[in-house]
Amino acid sequence: MTSNETPDKTIYEGHIVKLELLEGKWEAVRHAPAVVILALRDGKMLCVRQQRRVVGADTLEVPAGLIDEGETPEAAARRELSEETNFDGDMTLLTRFYSSPGFCDEELFVFRAENLVDKPGTPDADEDITVEWHDPSHVLEALRTGREKGSASTITATLFALRELGR
Amino acid sequence: MTSNETPDKTIYEGHIVKLELLEGKWEAVRHAPAVVILALRDGKMLCVRQQRRVVGADTLEVPAGLIDEGETPEAAARRELSEETNFDGDMTLLTRFYSSPGFCDEELFVFRAENLVDKPGTPDADEDITVEWHDPSHVLEALRTGREKGSASTITATLFALRELGR
Repeated sequence: MTSNETPDKTIYEGHIVKLELLEGKWEAVRHAPAVVILALRDGKMLCVRQQRRVVGADTLEVPAGLIDEGETPEAAARRELSEETNFDGDMTLLTRFYSSPGFCDEELFVFRAENLVDKPGTPDADEDITVEWHDPSHVLEALRTGREKGSASTITATLFALRELGR
Repeated sequence: MTSNETPDKTIYEGHIVKLELLEGKWEAVRHAPAVVILALRDGKMLCVRQQRRVVGADTLEVPAGLIDEGETPEAAARRELSEETNFDGDMTLLTRFYSSPGFCDEELFVFRAENLVDKPGTPDADEDITVEWHDPSHVLEALRTGREKGSASTITATLFALRELGR
């Protein structure tokens, strides 16, 4: 560190976020990486509807969740898919990206799940999730008009689904 | 409020993020909404490369930025496009979504810019942006392999570009 640099400082350390101030001025939210899973059956994509307190709305998303310490992204994807939807499947990485790298380091790994089989799992106690299958063309339109609220995971999975379906 | 509810509490209020604790337990990052702009020319998409201190990497993204207080998303998209790339254009909303609604309320509005014309703008003093045009097929592959680091804006714009180009 050179003499004119201000050291990074931790402002708050919570359960899922840590807030730091870099070089005395850049606010940085630290957050675990997460996985997102696209599954398709008969032209429909596997979605989860849940209440998101932070945005004050029910969202239509796809299965997703945090990667545990020491867990691989693929193992996290299989675990989350089972916990949220009672399915397991073969995972292939479609893409990865930061959700909002201007202020947060959360990185998302997006998987395509294939060869789905039943695998009952237990959702986190604080999650209240409804599983739904939707036509990705309808999801695309519902996000645009604002009829459904979604996330980066929703739009990414939807566009990959349409690409695969040739629509 | 019923008697067993804990009121929401502000933990930190900074320049671009505010951190709250909802009902005594849910960590919520408050962040202004933002715009993202997809522009295409000769089959290539308009990208911006910039250093993102928070993730410790250079990212390949598309023009994007915060919506100012009282500004419409469309006006913000035209302003940001000019500031970051010296272009103006007609804007059409492609989609909108929350970047990561489990812990943050940032909402992104994604626009398609057409009929580009020159319009010099001045970038924010703290931004160091390089404008580049890329083949969206190459961007898709570079994100998947990790050769390029991107954001929710990058993958969304890339998939919309490929969709429009029929690839």
